[in-house]
Amino acid sequence: MTSLAMTPAEVRVAAQELMDDYGERIDSNRLEEWLDLFAEDCSYRIMSRENVEQNLPVPLMMCTSKNQLRDRIVALRRANEYNLHYDRHVIGAPRIRPTDTADLWTVEASYAVFQTTLEGQPRLFSVGRYTDKLRVEGGTLLICEKLVVVDSFSIPTLLATPL
Amino acid sequence: MTSLAMTPAEVRVAAQELMDDYGERIDSNRLEEWLDLFAEDCSYRIMSRENVEQNLPVPLMMCTSKNQLRDRIVALRRANEYNLHYDRHVIGAPRIRPTDTADLWTVEASYAVFQTTLEGQPRLFSVGRYTDKLRVEGGTLLICEKLVVVDSFSIPTLLATPL
Amino acid sequence: MTSLAMTPAEVRVAAQELMDDYGERIDSNRLEEWLDLFAEDCSYRIMSRENVEQNLPVPLMMCTSKNQLRDRIVALRRANEYNLHYDRHVIGAPRIRPTDTADLWTVEASYAVFQTTLEGQPRLFSVGRYTDKLRVEGGTLLICEKLVVVDSFSIPTLLATPL
Repeated sequence: MTSLAMTPAEVRVAAQELMDDYGERIDSNRLEEWLDLFAEDCSYRIMSRENVEQNLPVPLMMCTSKNQLRDRIVALRRANEYNLHYDRHVIGAPRIRPTDTADLWTVEASYAVFQTTLEGQPRLFSVGRYTDKLRVEGGTLLICEKLVVVDSFSIPTLLATPL
Repeated sequence: MTSLAMTPAEVRVAAQELMDDYGERIDSNRLEEWLDLFAEDCSYRIMSRENVEQNLPVPLMMCTSKNQLRDRIVALRRANEYNLHYDRHVIGAPRIRPTDTADLWTVEASYAVFQTTLEGQPRLFSVGRYTDKLRVEGGTLLICEKLVVVDSFSIPTLLATPL
Repeated sequence: MTSLAMTPAEVRVAAQELMDDYGERIDSNRLEEWLDLFAEDCSYRIMSRENVEQNLPVPLMMCTSKNQLRDRIVALRRANEYNLHYDRHVIGAPRIRPTDTADLWTVEASYAVFQTTLEGQPRLFSVGRYTDKLRVEGGTLLICEKLVVVDSFSIPTLLATPL
Protein backbone atom coordinates (compact mmCIF):
# COMPACT_ATOMS: atom_id res chain seq x y z
CA MET A 1 0.00 0.00 0.00
CA THR A 2 2.03 2.93 -1.26
CA SER A 3 0.77 6.39 -0.49
CA LEU A 4 1.40 9.07 -3.10
CA ALA A 5 0.93 12.47 -1.50
CA MET A 6 -2.11 14.65 -2.15
CA THR A 7 -2.30 18.25 -0.98
CA PRO A 8 -5.26 19.23 1.23
CA ALA A 9 -6.73 21.22 -1.68
CA GLU A 10 -6.47 18.16 -3.94
CA VAL A 11 -8.10 16.01 -1.27
CA ARG A 12 -11.03 18.46 -1.05
CA VAL A 13 -11.68 18.30 -4.77
CA ALA A 14 -11.22 14.51 -4.82
CA ALA A 15 -13.50 13.98 -1.80
CA GLN A 16 -16.27 16.05 -3.37
CA GLU A 17 -15.92 14.07 -6.60
CA LEU A 18 -15.84 10.81 -4.68
CA MET A 19 -19.11 11.68 -2.95
CA ASP A 20 -20.72 12.47 -6.29
CA ASP A 21 -19.29 9.30 -7.87
CA TYR A 22 -20.63 7.30 -4.95
CA GLY A 23 -24.19 8.42 -5.64
CA GLU A 24 -23.93 8.52 -9.39
CA ARG A 25 -22.57 5.00 -9.82
CA ILE A 26 -25.44 3.64 -7.74
CA ASP A 27 -27.95 5.76 -9.65
CA SER A 28 -26.67 4.65 -13.05
CA ASN A 29 -26.54 1.03 -11.90
CA ARG A 30 -22.77 0.75 -12.36
CA LEU A 31 -22.41 -1.12 -9.08
CA GLU A 32 -19.20 -2.89 -10.02
CA GLU A 33 -17.56 0.51 -10.60
CA TRP A 34 -19.12 1.69 -7.35
CA LEU A 35 -17.10 -1.05 -5.62
CA ASP A 36 -13.92 0.53 -7.01
CA LEU A 37 -14.46 3.47 -4.66
CA PHE A 38 -13.80 1.31 -1.58
CA ALA A 39 -10.55 0.15 0.04
CA GLU A 40 -10.08 -3.63 0.44
CA ASP A 41 -10.35 -3.40 4.24
CA CYS A 42 -13.41 -1.15 4.14
CA SER A 43 -16.54 -1.34 6.22
CA TYR A 44 -20.02 -0.38 5.09
CA ARG A 45 -22.85 0.05 7.58
CA ILE A 46 -26.41 1.30 7.39
CA MET A 47 -27.86 2.21 10.78
CA SER A 48 -31.21 3.63 11.76
CA ARG A 49 -31.08 6.99 13.43
CA GLU A 50 -33.19 5.56 16.22
CA ASN A 51 -30.46 3.04 17.06
CA VAL A 52 -27.63 5.55 16.74
CA GLU A 53 -29.32 7.95 19.16
CA GLN A 54 -29.81 5.20 21.75
CA ASN A 55 -26.32 3.78 21.29
CA LEU A 56 -27.74 0.51 20.04
CA PRO A 57 -25.11 -0.88 17.72
CA VAL A 58 -27.20 -3.25 15.56
CA PRO A 59 -27.06 -2.09 11.94
CA LEU A 60 -29.70 -2.53 9.23
CA MET A 61 -26.90 -3.74 6.99
CA MET A 62 -23.21 -4.33 7.54
CA CYS A 63 -20.30 -5.43 5.42
CA THR A 64 -16.90 -5.60 7.07
CA SER A 65 -14.77 -6.00 3.96
CA LYS A 66 -14.84 -5.20 0.29
CA ASN A 67 -15.33 -8.89 -0.45
CA GLN A 68 -18.60 -8.83 1.47
CA LEU A 69 -19.67 -5.82 -0.56
CA ARG A 70 -18.72 -7.67 -3.76
CA ASP A 71 -20.88 -10.56 -2.66
CA ARG A 72 -23.79 -8.29 -2.11
CA ILE A 73 -23.50 -6.83 -5.59
CA VAL A 74 -23.33 -10.28 -7.15
CA ALA A 75 -26.44 -11.27 -5.20
CA LEU A 76 -28.19 -8.11 -6.40
CA ARG A 77 -27.29 -8.83 -10.00
CA ARG A 78 -28.67 -12.35 -9.78
CA ALA A 79 -31.73 -11.81 -7.57
CA ASN A 80 -33.20 -8.39 -8.11
CA GLU A 81 -36.12 -9.18 -10.37
CA TYR A 82 -38.66 -7.07 -8.50
CA ASN A 83 -39.09 -3.46 -7.46
CA LEU A 84 -37.32 -2.21 -10.54
CA HIS A 85 -36.75 1.51 -10.28
CA TYR A 86 -34.33 4.35 -10.86
CA ASP A 87 -32.42 5.73 -7.88
CA ARG A 88 -31.31 9.35 -7.64
CA HIS A 89 -29.05 10.69 -4.90
CA VAL A 90 -29.03 14.39 -4.14
CA ILE A 91 -26.18 14.96 -1.70
CA GLY A 92 -25.50 18.24 0.09
CA ALA A 93 -22.11 19.94 -0.04
CA PRO A 94 -19.76 17.65 1.90
CA ARG A 95 -17.82 18.69 4.98
CA ILE A 96 -14.25 17.46 4.61
CA ARG A 97 -11.81 17.34 7.52
CA PRO A 98 -8.31 16.02 8.13
CA THR A 99 -7.74 13.61 11.03
CA ASP A 100 -4.73 13.14 13.28
CA THR A 101 -3.59 10.31 11.03
CA ALA A 102 -1.79 11.35 7.85
CA ASP A 103 -3.73 10.52 4.65
CA LEU A 104 -6.93 9.82 6.62
CA TRP A 105 -9.85 12.23 6.23
CA THR A 106 -13.45 12.38 7.39
CA VAL A 107 -16.27 13.48 5.13
CA GLU A 108 -19.89 14.05 6.10
CA ALA A 109 -22.91 14.99 4.03
CA SER A 110 -26.69 14.85 4.25
CA TYR A 111 -28.50 13.11 1.44
CA ALA A 112 -31.92 12.48 -0.04
CA VAL A 113 -32.53 9.47 -2.27
CA PHE A 114 -35.48 9.53 -4.67
CA GLN A 115 -36.84 6.46 -6.42
CA THR A 116 -38.61 6.70 -9.74
CA THR A 117 -40.73 3.89 -11.13
CA LEU A 118 -40.11 2.63 -14.64
CA GLU A 119 -43.23 4.62 -15.56
CA GLY A 120 -41.44 7.80 -14.50
CA GLN A 121 -43.19 8.51 -11.19
CA PRO A 122 -40.74 9.79 -8.56
CA ARG A 123 -41.05 9.61 -4.79
CA LEU A 124 -38.93 10.38 -1.78
CA PHE A 125 -37.27 7.13 -0.66
CA SER A 126 -34.66 7.83 1.99
CA VAL A 127 -33.10 10.74 3.87
CA GLY A 128 -30.13 10.65 6.20
CA ARG A 129 -26.46 11.42 6.58
CA TYR A 130 -23.16 9.91 5.54
CA THR A 131 -20.26 9.88 8.00
CA ASP A 132 -17.30 8.44 6.19
CA LYS A 133 -13.58 7.94 6.47
CA LEU A 134 -11.46 8.32 3.37
CA ARG A 135 -7.85 7.28 2.86
CA VAL A 136 -5.28 8.31 0.29
CA GLU A 137 -3.91 5.13 -1.30
CA GLY A 138 -1.53 5.25 -4.23
CA GLY A 139 -2.53 8.77 -5.14
CA THR A 140 -6.28 8.16 -5.06
CA LEU A 141 -8.87 8.63 -2.37
CA LEU A 142 -10.81 5.55 -1.27
CA ILE A 143 -13.63 4.95 1.19
CA CYS A 144 -12.38 2.96 4.16
CA GLU A 145 -15.46 3.46 6.35
CA LYS A 146 -18.97 4.22 5.15
CA LEU A 147 -21.65 4.83 7.74
CA VAL A 148 -25.13 5.67 6.48
CA VAL A 149 -27.43 6.91 9.23
CA VAL A 150 -30.98 6.64 7.94
CA ASP A 151 -33.72 8.87 9.35
CA SER A 152 -36.34 7.09 7.28
CA PHE A 153 -35.73 3.60 8.63
CA SER A 154 -39.25 2.45 7.90
CA ILE A 155 -38.37 1.21 4.46
CA PRO A 156 -41.46 0.88 2.29
CA THR A 157 -40.16 -1.71 -0.13
CA LEU A 158 -36.79 -3.25 -0.10
CA LEU A 159 -33.32 -2.04 0.67
CA ALA A 160 -31.98 -3.67 -2.46
CA THR A 161 -29.62 -1.16 -4.02
CA PRO A 162 -27.12 0.42 -1.62
CA LEU A 163 -27.92 3.80 -0.07
CA MET B 1 -14.20 42.32 18.25
CA THR B 2 -10.76 41.40 16.93
CA SER B 3 -10.56 40.17 13.37
CA LEU B 4 -7.94 37.59 12.57
CA ALA B 5 -7.47 37.47 8.84
CA MET B 6 -8.82 34.65 6.67
CA THR B 7 -7.88 34.28 3.03
CA PRO B 8 -10.71 34.13 0.48
CA ALA B 9 -9.97 30.43 -0.07
CA GLU B 10 -10.21 29.80 3.68
CA VAL B 11 -13.48 31.73 3.83
CA ARG B 12 -14.91 29.55 1.04
CA VAL B 13 -14.12 26.34 2.89
CA ALA B 14 -15.35 27.80 6.20
CA ALA B 15 -18.59 29.12 4.64
CA GLN B 16 -19.37 25.75 3.10
CA GLU B 17 -18.72 24.04 6.44
CA LEU B 18 -20.79 26.66 8.25
CA MET B 19 -23.76 25.99 5.98
CA ASP B 20 -23.46 22.27 6.62
CA ASP B 21 -23.05 22.83 10.38
CA TYR B 22 -26.11 25.05 10.33
CA GLY B 23 -28.29 22.26 8.98
CA GLU B 24 -26.62 19.41 10.80
CA ARG B 25 -26.84 20.95 14.27
CA ILE B 26 -30.57 21.49 13.78
CA ASP B 27 -31.00 17.97 12.41
CA SER B 28 -29.14 16.35 15.29
CA ASN B 29 -31.03 18.50 17.81
CA ARG B 30 -27.87 20.23 19.06
CA LEU B 31 -29.61 23.59 19.10
CA GLU B 32 -27.38 25.15 21.73
CA GLU B 33 -24.36 24.47 19.51
CA TRP B 34 -26.38 25.80 16.58
CA LEU B 35 -26.53 29.12 18.45
CA ASP B 36 -22.71 29.19 18.49
CA LEU B 37 -22.80 29.79 14.74
CA PHE B 38 -24.34 33.25 15.17
CA ALA B 39 -22.79 36.63 16.03
CA GLU B 40 -24.19 38.42 19.11
CA ASP B 41 -25.74 41.18 16.98
CA CYS B 42 -27.26 38.74 14.49
CA SER B 43 -30.69 38.78 12.96
CA TYR B 44 -32.70 35.72 11.97
CA ARG B 45 -35.77 36.02 9.78
CA ILE B 46 -38.09 33.58 8.06
CA MET B 47 -40.17 35.17 5.31
CA SER B 48 -42.69 33.69 2.92
CA ARG B 49 -41.78 33.97 -0.71
CA GLU B 50 -45.20 35.51 -1.31
CA ASN B 51 -44.35 38.43 0.96
CA VAL B 52 -40.83 38.86 -0.41
CA GLU B 53 -42.09 39.09 -3.97
CA GLN B 54 -44.66 41.73 -3.04
CA ASN B 55 -42.23 43.70 -0.88
CA LEU B 56 -44.33 43.02 2.20
CA PRO B 57 -41.87 43.06 5.08
CA VAL B 58 -43.78 41.03 7.71
CA PRO B 59 -41.79 37.89 8.53
CA LEU B 60 -43.12 34.52 9.68
CA MET B 61 -40.50 34.64 12.39
CA MET B 62 -37.94 37.24 13.41
CA CYS B 63 -35.21 37.47 16.01
CA THR B 64 -33.13 40.64 16.05
CA SER B 65 -30.37 39.46 18.38
CA LYS B 66 -28.69 36.29 19.51
CA ASN B 67 -30.40 36.64 22.88
CA GLN B 68 -33.78 36.39 21.19
CA LEU B 69 -32.61 33.25 19.42
CA ARG B 70 -31.41 31.85 22.76
CA ASP B 71 -34.84 32.52 24.22
CA ARG B 72 -36.45 30.65 21.42
CA ILE B 73 -34.28 27.61 21.95
CA VAL B 74 -35.02 27.60 25.70
CA ALA B 75 -38.74 27.79 24.87
CA LEU B 76 -38.37 24.91 22.43
CA ARG B 77 -36.59 22.78 25.04
CA ARG B 78 -39.33 23.37 27.61
CA ALA B 79 -42.41 23.32 25.41
CA ASN B 80 -41.96 21.00 22.46
CA GLU B 81 -43.87 17.93 23.61
CA TYR B 82 -45.72 17.38 20.37
CA ASN B 83 -44.90 16.80 16.72
CA LEU B 84 -41.76 14.91 17.59
CA HIS B 85 -39.79 14.21 14.44
CA TYR B 86 -36.37 14.12 12.85
CA ASP B 87 -35.33 17.00 10.62
CA ARG B 88 -32.97 16.60 7.68
CA HIS B 89 -31.58 19.50 5.67
CA VAL B 90 -30.27 18.90 2.18
CA ILE B 91 -28.61 22.13 1.10
CA GLY B 92 -27.33 22.84 -2.40
CA ALA B 93 -23.78 23.98 -3.07
CA PRO B 94 -23.55 27.50 -1.60
CA ARG B 95 -22.68 30.60 -3.61
CA ILE B 96 -20.13 32.60 -1.62
CA ARG B 97 -19.28 36.21 -2.45
CA PRO B 98 -17.21 38.98 -0.89
CA THR B 99 -18.88 42.34 -0.17
CA ASP B 100 -17.48 45.87 -0.25
CA THR B 101 -16.90 45.61 3.50
CA ALA B 102 -13.77 43.75 4.57
CA ASP B 103 -14.49 40.47 6.44
CA LEU B 104 -18.16 40.55 5.39
CA TRP B 105 -19.37 37.90 2.93
CA THR B 106 -22.70 36.85 1.48
CA VAL B 107 -23.71 33.24 1.05
CA GLU B 108 -26.79 31.89 -0.67
CA ALA B 109 -28.09 28.36 -1.08
CA SER B 110 -31.33 26.56 -1.87
CA TYR B 111 -32.50 23.97 0.62
CA ALA B 112 -35.01 21.20 1.15
CA VAL B 113 -35.96 20.10 4.66
CA PHE B 114 -37.43 16.65 5.17
CA GLN B 115 -39.19 15.56 8.34
CA THR B 116 -39.29 11.93 9.40
CA THR B 117 -41.70 10.64 12.02
CA LEU B 118 -40.41 8.62 14.95
CA GLU B 119 -41.78 5.61 13.06
CA GLY B 120 -39.34 6.37 10.24
CA GLN B 121 -41.73 7.80 7.62
CA PRO B 122 -40.16 10.73 5.75
CA ARG B 123 -41.93 13.57 3.97
CA LEU B 124 -40.99 16.81 2.28
CA PHE B 125 -41.46 19.61 4.82
CA SER B 126 -40.02 22.86 3.46
CA VAL B 127 -38.20 24.21 0.43
CA GLY B 128 -36.70 27.63 -0.03
CA ARG B 129 -33.49 29.62 -0.08
CA TYR B 130 -31.04 31.06 2.40
CA THR B 131 -29.59 34.53 1.81
CA ASP B 132 -27.10 35.16 4.57
CA LYS B 133 -24.36 37.52 5.64
CA LEU B 134 -21.28 36.08 7.30
CA ARG B 135 -18.59 37.94 9.19
CA VAL B 136 -15.06 36.95 10.14
CA GLU B 137 -14.69 37.47 13.90
CA GLY B 138 -11.58 36.41 15.76
CA GLY B 139 -10.54 34.04 13.03
CA THR B 140 -13.91 32.28 12.71
CA LEU B 141 -16.85 32.87 10.44
CA LEU B 142 -20.19 33.71 12.09
CA ILE B 143 -23.69 34.34 10.76
CA CYS B 144 -24.64 37.97 11.22
CA GLU B 145 -27.78 37.89 9.07
CA LYS B 146 -29.89 34.84 8.29
CA LEU B 147 -32.80 35.24 5.92
CA VAL B 148 -34.83 32.13 5.09
CA VAL B 149 -37.22 32.66 2.20
CA VAL B 150 -39.76 29.85 2.30
CA ASP B 151 -41.58 28.76 -0.84
CA SER B 152 -43.71 26.35 1.13
CA PHE B 153 -45.23 28.86 3.53
CA SER B 154 -48.33 26.77 4.11
CA ILE B 155 -46.82 24.96 7.03
CA PRO B 156 -48.67 21.73 7.74
CA THR B 157 -47.82 21.39 11.40
CA LEU B 158 -45.74 23.69 13.43
CA LEU B 159 -42.66 25.74 12.74
CA ALA B 160 -41.08 24.52 15.95
CA THR B 161 -37.47 23.75 15.10
CA PRO B 162 -35.63 26.43 13.10
CA LEU B 163 -35.45 26.12 9.34
CA MET C 1 -14.60 35.20 -29.31
CA THR C 2 -11.67 36.25 -27.16
CA SER C 3 -10.70 33.98 -24.33
CA LEU C 4 -9.34 35.59 -21.19
CA ALA C 5 -7.61 32.95 -19.15
CA MET C 6 -9.10 31.46 -15.99
CA THR C 7 -7.10 29.23 -13.67
CA PRO C 8 -8.54 25.79 -12.88
CA ALA C 9 -9.30 26.96 -9.33
CA GLU C 10 -11.20 29.97 -10.73
CA VAL C 11 -13.11 27.72 -13.10
CA ARG C 12 -14.16 25.49 -10.18
CA VAL C 13 -15.58 28.42 -8.22
CA ALA C 14 -17.21 29.87 -11.35
CA ALA C 15 -18.73 26.53 -12.38
CA GLN C 16 -20.22 25.99 -8.94
CA GLU C 17 -21.68 29.52 -9.02
CA LEU C 18 -22.95 28.99 -12.55
CA MET C 19 -24.81 25.85 -11.50
CA ASP C 20 -26.40 27.73 -8.62
CA ASP C 21 -27.24 30.70 -10.86
CA TYR C 22 -28.80 28.32 -13.35
CA GLY C 23 -31.27 27.01 -10.81
CA GLU C 24 -31.80 30.25 -8.94
CA ARG C 25 -32.64 32.34 -12.02
CA ILE C 26 -35.28 29.80 -13.02
CA ASP C 27 -36.63 29.65 -9.47
CA SER C 28 -36.88 33.42 -9.14
CA ASN C 29 -38.45 33.68 -12.59
CA ARG C 30 -35.59 35.77 -14.01
CA LEU C 31 -35.59 33.77 -17.22
CA GLU C 32 -34.09 36.53 -19.37
CA GLU C 33 -31.06 36.60 -17.06
CA TRP C 34 -31.05 32.82 -17.15
CA LEU C 35 -30.45 33.11 -20.90
CA ASP C 36 -27.32 35.13 -20.18
CA LEU C 37 -25.70 31.96 -18.84
CA PHE C 38 -25.66 30.36 -22.32
CA ALA C 39 -23.27 30.76 -25.25
CA GLU C 40 -24.81 31.84 -28.57
CA ASP C 41 -24.09 28.45 -30.18
CA CYS C 42 -25.44 26.49 -27.21
CA SER C 43 -27.66 23.45 -27.21
CA TYR C 44 -30.24 22.61 -24.57
CA ARG C 45 -31.81 19.17 -24.37
CA ILE C 46 -34.13 17.40 -21.97
CA MET C 47 -34.10 13.62 -22.37
CA SER C 48 -35.91 10.89 -20.48
CA ARG C 49 -33.66 8.44 -18.73
CA GLU C 50 -35.58 5.65 -20.42
CA ASN C 51 -34.49 6.95 -23.83
CA VAL C 52 -30.90 7.59 -22.79
CA GLU C 53 -30.49 4.05 -21.48
CA GLN C 54 -31.83 2.56 -24.71
CA ASN C 55 -29.80 4.91 -26.92
CA LEU C 56 -32.99 6.42 -28.33
CA PRO C 57 -32.05 9.95 -29.27
CA VAL C 58 -35.47 11.66 -29.27
CA PRO C 59 -35.49 14.40 -26.62
CA LEU C 60 -38.46 15.71 -24.62
CA MET C 61 -37.28 19.17 -25.52
CA MET C 62 -34.45 20.47 -27.66
CA CYS C 63 -33.08 23.87 -28.58
CA THR C 64 -30.02 23.97 -30.82
CA SER C 65 -29.15 27.65 -30.42
CA LYS C 66 -29.55 30.45 -27.94
CA ASN C 67 -32.08 32.07 -30.26
CA GLN C 68 -34.33 29.04 -29.93
CA LEU C 69 -34.06 29.29 -26.16
CA ARG C 70 -34.92 33.01 -26.38
CA ASP C 71 -37.99 32.11 -28.37
CA ARG C 72 -39.07 29.67 -25.78
CA ILE C 73 -38.79 32.24 -23.00
CA VAL C 74 -40.82 34.78 -25.02
CA ALA C 75 -43.49 32.11 -25.55
CA LEU C 76 -43.48 31.34 -21.84
CA ARG C 77 -43.90 34.98 -20.95
CA ARG C 78 -46.87 35.38 -23.29
CA ALA C 79 -48.61 32.04 -22.81
CA ASN C 80 -48.11 30.74 -19.32
CA GLU C 81 -51.42 31.64 -17.69
CA TYR C 82 -51.96 28.27 -16.03
CA ASN C 83 -50.18 26.04 -13.57
CA LEU C 84 -48.71 29.00 -11.71
CA HIS C 85 -46.22 27.79 -9.15
CA TYR C 86 -42.85 28.39 -7.56
CA ASP C 87 -39.92 26.26 -8.67
CA ARG C 88 -37.04 25.33 -6.38
CA HIS C 89 -33.88 23.56 -7.53
CA VAL C 90 -31.74 21.72 -5.02
CA ILE C 91 -28.60 20.69 -6.86
CA GLY C 92 -25.91 18.41 -5.44
CA ALA C 93 -22.27 19.42 -5.32
CA PRO C 94 -21.14 19.53 -8.97
CA ARG C 95 -18.33 17.41 -10.41
CA ILE C 96 -16.14 19.66 -12.55
CA ARG C 97 -13.58 18.29 -15.00
CA PRO C 98 -11.29 19.70 -17.68
CA THR C 99 -11.49 18.29 -21.22
CA ASP C 100 -8.82 17.83 -23.85
CA THR C 101 -9.86 21.15 -25.38
CA ALA C 102 -8.49 24.25 -23.68
CA ASP C 103 -11.19 26.38 -21.99
CA LEU C 104 -13.76 23.60 -22.29
CA TRP C 105 -14.96 21.89 -19.10
CA THR C 106 -17.59 19.33 -18.21
CA VAL C 107 -19.80 19.64 -15.17
CA GLU C 108 -22.27 17.10 -13.82
CA ALA C 109 -24.69 17.26 -10.91
CA SER C 110 -27.81 15.49 -9.70
CA TYR C 111 -30.83 17.67 -8.97
CA ALA C 112 -34.27 17.65 -7.44
CA VAL C 113 -36.85 20.26 -8.47
CA PHE C 114 -39.73 21.00 -6.13
CA GLN C 115 -42.84 22.90 -7.14
CA THR C 116 -44.88 24.86 -4.63
CA THR C 117 -48.40 26.04 -5.35
CA LEU C 118 -49.30 29.69 -4.82
CA GLU C 119 -51.00 28.47 -1.63
CA GLY C 120 -47.61 27.31 -0.36
CA GLN C 121 -47.96 23.52 -0.77
CA PRO C 122 -44.72 21.94 -2.00
CA ARG C 123 -44.28 18.67 -3.87
CA LEU C 124 -41.50 16.80 -5.58
CA PHE C 125 -41.63 17.62 -9.30
CA SER C 126 -38.56 16.28 -11.05
CA VAL C 127 -35.33 14.42 -10.30
CA GLY C 128 -32.46 13.76 -12.65
CA ARG C 129 -28.96 14.75 -13.61
CA TYR C 130 -27.26 17.53 -15.53
CA THR C 131 -24.39 16.70 -17.87
CA ASP C 132 -23.10 19.98 -19.23
CA LYS C 133 -20.24 21.49 -21.17
CA LEU C 134 -18.95 24.89 -20.13
CA ARG C 135 -16.66 27.20 -22.07
CA VAL C 136 -14.55 30.14 -20.97
CA GLU C 137 -15.44 33.10 -23.19
CA GLY C 138 -14.06 36.55 -22.56
CA GLY C 139 -13.19 35.75 -18.97
CA THR C 140 -16.58 34.28 -18.05
CA LEU C 141 -17.88 30.76 -18.05
CA LEU C 142 -20.88 30.00 -20.28
CA ILE C 143 -23.00 26.91 -20.89
CA CYS C 144 -22.41 25.58 -24.39
CA GLU C 145 -24.19 22.24 -23.90
CA LYS C 146 -26.93 21.51 -21.39
CA LEU C 147 -28.25 17.99 -21.17
CA VAL C 148 -30.94 17.28 -18.58
CA VAL C 149 -31.58 13.57 -18.10
CA VAL C 150 -34.92 13.23 -16.32
CA ASP C 151 -35.68 10.15 -14.24
CA SER C 152 -39.22 11.36 -13.62
CA PHE C 153 -40.29 11.62 -17.23
CA SER C 154 -43.94 11.09 -16.45
CA ILE C 155 -44.58 14.79 -16.04
CA PRO C 156 -47.77 15.40 -14.07
CA THR C 157 -48.61 18.84 -15.39
CA LEU C 158 -46.66 20.77 -17.89
CA LEU C 159 -43.01 21.20 -18.64
CA ALA C 160 -43.43 24.96 -18.87
CA THR C 161 -40.47 26.45 -17.03
CA PRO C 162 -37.07 24.98 -17.92
CA LEU C 163 -35.61 22.22 -15.75
